[in-house]
Amino acid sequence: MKRILIALILVCVTFPLFGQLTLRDCVGPRAFPARLSQLSWQGDGENYVYVKGSTLMQGDVKGNTTELLTLGKLNKAFEDEEVSLGRFPSMTWEDENTFSFFHQNTHYTYTLDDGTMTEGLSYPEEAENLDIGPNNRVAFTISHNAYIQVAGEDSERQLTTDGSLDLVYGEAAHRSEFGIVKGLFWSNSGNHLAFYRQDQSMVTEYPLIDYMERTAKYTPIKYPMAGAASHEVAIGIYDVETEKTIFLKVDGPAEQYLTNITWSPDDKLVYVAVLNRDQNDMSLNAYDVATGELVKTLFTEKHDKYVEPEHGPIFLPKTKDQFIWYSERDGYNHLYLYNTEGKLLKQLTEGDWIVTDILAIDPDEACLIYTSTEVSPVERHTYRLDLNNGKRKRLTQAKGMHASQVRGDMAYILDAYSNLETPYVQQVVNIKKGKQTASLLEADDPLADENLGEMTLMTLKAEDGHDLHCRLIKPVDFDPNKKYPVMIYVYGGPHVQLVQDRYLGAARPFLQYMAQKGYVVFTLDNRGSADRGRTFEQAIFRQCGTAEVADQMVGVNWLKKQSYVDADRMGVYGWSYGGFMTMSMMLRNPGVFKAGVAGGPVIDWKYYEIMYTERYMDTPETNPDGYKTASLLGYVNNLEGQKLLIIHGQQDNVVVPQHTQAFVRKCVENNVLVDYFPYPTHPHNVRGWDRVHLLNKISSYFEENL
Amino acid sequence: MKRILIALILVCVTFPLFGQLTLRDCVGPRAFPARLSQLSWQGDGENYVYVKGSTLMQGDVKGNTTELLTLGKLNKAFEDEEVSLGRFPSMTWEDENTFSFFHQNTHYTYTLDDGTMTEGLSYPEEAENLDIGPNNRVAFTISHNAYIQVAGEDSERQLTTDGSLDLVYGEAAHRSEFGIVKGLFWSNSGNHLAFYRQDQSMVTEYPLIDYMERTAKYTPIKYPMAGAASHEVAIGIYDVETEKTIFLKVDGPAEQYLTNITWSPDDKLVYVAVLNRDQNDMSLNAYDVATGELVKTLFTEKHDKYVEPEHGPIFLPKTKDQFIWYSERDGYNHLYLYNTEGKLLKQLTEGDWIVTDILAIDPDEACLIYTSTEVSPVERHTYRLDLNNGKRKRLTQAKGMHASQVRGDMAYILDAYSNLETPYVQQVVNIKKGKQTASLLEADDPLADENLGEMTLMTLKAEDGHDLHCRLIKPVDFDPNKKYPVMIYVYGGPHVQLVQDRYLGAARPFLQYMAQKGYVVFTLDNRGSADRGRTFEQAIFRQCGTAEVADQMVGVNWLKKQSYVDADRMGVYGWSYGGFMTMSMMLRNPGVFKAGVAGGPVIDWKYYEIMYTERYMDTPETNPDGYKTASLLGYVNNLEGQKLLIIHGQQDNVVVPQHTQAFVRKCVENNVLVDYFPYPTHPHNVRGWDRVHLLNKISSYFEENL
Repeated sequence: MKRILIALILVCVTFPLFGQLTLRDCVGPRAFPARLSQLSWQGDGENYVYVKGSTLMQGDVKGNTTELLTLGKLNKAFEDEEVSLGRFPSMTWEDENTFSFFHQNTHYTYTLDDGTMTEGLSYPEEAENLDIGPNNRVAFTISHNAYIQVAGEDSERQLTTDGSLDLVYGEAAHRSEFGIVKGLFWSNSGNHLAFYRQDQSMVTEYPLIDYMERTAKYTPIKYPMAGAASHEVAIGIYDVETEKTIFLKVDGPAEQYLTNITWSPDDKLVYVAVLNRDQNDMSLNAYDVATGELVKTLFTEKHDKYVEPEHGPIFLPKTKDQFIWYSERDGYNHLYLYNTEGKLLKQLTEGDWIVTDILAIDPDEACLIYTSTEVSPVERHTYRLDLNNGKRKRLTQAKGMHASQVRGDMAYILDAYSNLETPYVQQVVNIKKGKQTASLLEADDPLADENLGEMTLMTLKAEDGHDLHCRLIKPVDFDPNKKYPVMIYVYGGPHVQLVQDRYLGAARPFLQYMAQKGYVVFTLDNRGSADRGRTFEQAIFRQCGTAEVADQMVGVNWLKKQSYVDADRMGVYGWSYGGFMTMSMMLRNPGVFKAGVAGGPVIDWKYYEIMYTERYMDTPETNPDGYKTASLLGYVNNLEGQKLLIIHGQQDNVVVPQHTQAFVRKCVENNVLVDYFPYPTHPHNVRGWDRVHLLNKISSYFEENL
Repeated sequence: MKRILIALILVCVTFPLFGQLTLRDCVGPRAFPARLSQLSWQGDGENYVYVKGSTLMQGDVKGNTTELLTLGKLNKAFEDEEVSLGRFPSMTWEDENTFSFFHQNTHYTYTLDDGTMTEGLSYPEEAENLDIGPNNRVAFTISHNAYIQVAGEDSERQLTTDGSLDLVYGEAAHRSEFGIVKGLFWSNSGNHLAFYRQDQSMVTEYPLIDYMERTAKYTPIKYPMAGAASHEVAIGIYDVETEKTIFLKVDGPAEQYLTNITWSPDDKLVYVAVLNRDQNDMSLNAYDVATGELVKTLFTEKHDKYVEPEHGPIFLPKTKDQFIWYSERDGYNHLYLYNTEGKLLKQLTEGDWIVTDILAIDPDEACLIYTSTEVSPVERHTYRLDLNNGKRKRLTQAKGMHASQVRGDMAYILDAYSNLETPYVQQVVNIKKGKQTASLLEADDPLADENLGEMTLMTLKAEDGHDLHCRLIKPVDFDPNKKYPVMIYVYGGPHVQLVQDRYLGAARPFLQYMAQKGYVVFTLDNRGSADRGRTFEQAIFRQCGTAEVADQMVGVNWLKKQSYVDADRMGVYGWSYGGFMTMSMMLRNPGVFKAGVAGGPVIDWKYYEIMYTERYMDTPETNPDGYKTASLLGYVNNLEGQKLLIIHGQQDNVVVPQHTQAFVRKCVENNVLVDYFPYPTHPHNVRGWDRVHLLNKISSYFEENL
């Protein structure tokens, strides 16, 4: 459910080519097109850098490249002869001449011109949630307590001492909803540290079991279930000079959400987007760092369904009393310019598309560079917005999904993109001209030798007129006179978009594997899914499953009309919200599907976490009918005649095992056959090479039952 | 694994007959032949009684019956008008004129001749492990503490106060191995109470989860795993007069087993069979009740494999310094006469068969009545042993499994039996003549209208020459020219015998259900299984699975030679030890089976409880090779080409869920496909009507995969 992509960081293994994908191909790096490693601008300089094997390369905007640094030279710069890197580390460029990196719990800085290495702060091995601050200081947590390490001091400072599973300091609060990704926030000067304190003593313990110990071990987590007692969050401000901590005096009920912590440019204020538990009333508040007192509520945002702040204020580089604010208030995620009095100065972008990301703001405030869906919901392009006249200019021309990095002087972008026909391109684009100045890489298709199914992106119309984007993969060696079984792959929940005009249409190679097995593989992004605007998403409000399934049925009905589809052999597969969708589609439309596989599915929203669930469903108490309609427990008898395999990681701390245990129990009570498979060591997803087993299980299930 | 039969006490439902068994027929009472309810001797009288509807009937040895008491009359005898029984309670006959029973936490005594009801002791609703003693006193436990209630006293006495999950009083110790079924032991006079104290603070907690709570709840148990720290047991003696408790001073290591607690006839001594943790050295000790001191070790029994005491001394009624002792010391379970000096007076029974039960000892010590396997291992007959000349006389003539109750004067038995051809007979037999004097019931076959498969009992030879008893059920409408798939049903562990010459050959109706589905259904009791003597059982010592599987393969090979068997479609199914056997047969003989279903299987003996496991396997430390060979974790790759469904009750506190989670994990690691199904609310067995789902799951699995 979280917007964390499956990071398949696996050792590289060479694979033989047979024209036929293996499941290891589907899990390993086999289907990743080549890319220039660590391509980025060289700090504030004019050139860019990337790593090529054991060499750091430098390139100019015309594409001329030269060797900048070898790994051997870098390694020789370590004072301690025993320290040696096996390959280039993950580098952060401080300026054109300097980059820093972490190695073995130490922060190093390397200066290119004189070839010197400066050993910076070290931090304890057990440190987690590391946050590097200005002035060579670092914050981290150990066992739920917050620490900092300041350059020149012998040992770390422990900011809190009563941290525990019940009282958590310095970690991402509110279960990482509301755009929260961390819990330690250095001020601009590094003289203060803001940090979260989350009291979850009142939150129910959810029991998980580690079966791999000699005797299975109880490993509980704190899990706030919809409608139950929630955690209570506060924000501490630690003053590095005085060594004192105060807590912001945030009014309101204890269970509200303190989101998007942002330091003011002068470090005197901390901005917090305070959201009520019902998630329909947000205040952007400024608090005084010295006293913790509320200085001002700049403005509020309310909506009768929900508001979802995911970005703090982004201050202009020069006009420091103005900031940019993301808001969906006009129905689409757009940018607004405010001043620190809370006055709206102007709406910067507008249209029936959304801004997905601000990439850079011009130091001179002439423009900003952002990414949007303006061209198409299944594409992302980079734009320059003129801050003076409001005109926007598209910088990326090739269709597809673009991701750009902006040079400090706003003259060039490093752009990378792929589309259905283009595996991966990295290029330099001149912002003023909107044209490529150099192509850095045009990756070959890693699956060029594979016999893949023909892929099409298309749209169908939802009942309410919205375009629903779909991806169709025909079986390999497609014969229009034959009839093929169908496997629908679905997610369907908020924050995720499956159909995109990128390499393989954003499909994972497993979907092509199934096409090779002779399946029509189909995916549709229904209402509720990401980046289509507020109305499209909020169609699911208080009734998760209903609008989503209706849209999926638009796809199903289209499929049924295709001459090459065997309508008696339709299957569906999905994970997490997609598991919920898989089962909702089967159980709320009996007679359509023959087989399905649901991984880590939400069965009843009352078992899912407060922050996510109550946004879309309110609470079980305030929306009993909605919960009842959405609950799959009420439909077990509709499973008759359909084969359903439920898969669940036994360590799942997101969709906890209780969901599927409750469903299986209902099936037992009603003498309904269902299949189930546990992954004993896996949390919400099955990752690493074990995923080969998972895909084997899924494909075998369809082979046997569809 | 425990010798607790599945008690299917379910509401009676009428079933339509179709000639085809339903799964509800297999689970409910449909296949139970009629029987006279509560048939027993009328206390110490000459007649017997039984319940017929709302009437208590009385019969004489010639079979003449008369109404003795109506439920209406019994109900009128309650002083409290609001107390009323819906049917006859479970009665204990004190003498010919008096019976007692429990109703709503109260003990009542009813006198026939004057029709009076005496309200005896009441005990708290939360009382568990009730043990009624002489002189109208009762012992029980509440929350792991021991209590007694004495007639005439206002409230119960609490004997212990520090009871907890860590320190358990008055409950069956040592996980109910060694014949232990309770933890409270009244002396003969009722003036003392012996009770177990089990300190299990050092025993690992095994985490179980109750998924049916609003938020899944942690419900740990104490579970001592093979080789780990075990509990420590002591025996308390409470003096009802002085209200003081002493503990027996039992020498030896804390982890030994204190088994078979028995009061001496004069209540001055308590006998305890003390067994070392290695279970190969037992001492029968007498302790002084007044001081707790050891008075004498009467004798010891040792064996290089194991000894398994399951009966305390059984004192003669008159010669109170002599007792009967069960022992397998000559290779078969037989009876020995000892005196209280510990001197062996004589061996009472001998032969290559075993005594399964002593039914009665003549008050005049002229004879004893017992049950044995002398006729055949698949039959049980009742014998009279002349204690003077040692001659034994068979009292039951019809073949089959007999169970008898002896009249106080040793003149008659009430005998009940069934065999392959006889659903159920209840009769009176004259002991002197060895002949039936009256037939009380000859039950009709409740499945007479069903089309059942032909059943045969037979023997095959094990490699070591032992006869292996088998049960073969041919498919219904058997055609010798056809080829049929096979489902082997197996248990195979100690203490259980599946093949018996009783109604349905001791097969549960589900096996006939599968015969109706067209399967040859076969069962073989391999070495290790019950009632065949020590050598037969101890073939499994330190190598569970090896001899058992070899024997099962004798059956498999015989089946393969039968013209009507399709050797490519052989399946196997078993539960608990039978689940272990199912998987051992598949994994240690790849290429034989096509499909199997293993319920609650032991996967690795290191995860099973100390008391049972170490008897047969020693510890993981002292028998590493044996554990390794037996562990199914080592054979996952042999599963290739076989379909295996593992089923596990998620509340299983006998074979804990870790077993199958560990196996599934190994399968995932090795990319081996396996199927799994959890029963969320069920412990070691799936009971009640949910069993319909279980049998549905199992039969469907074979239908789909065999």
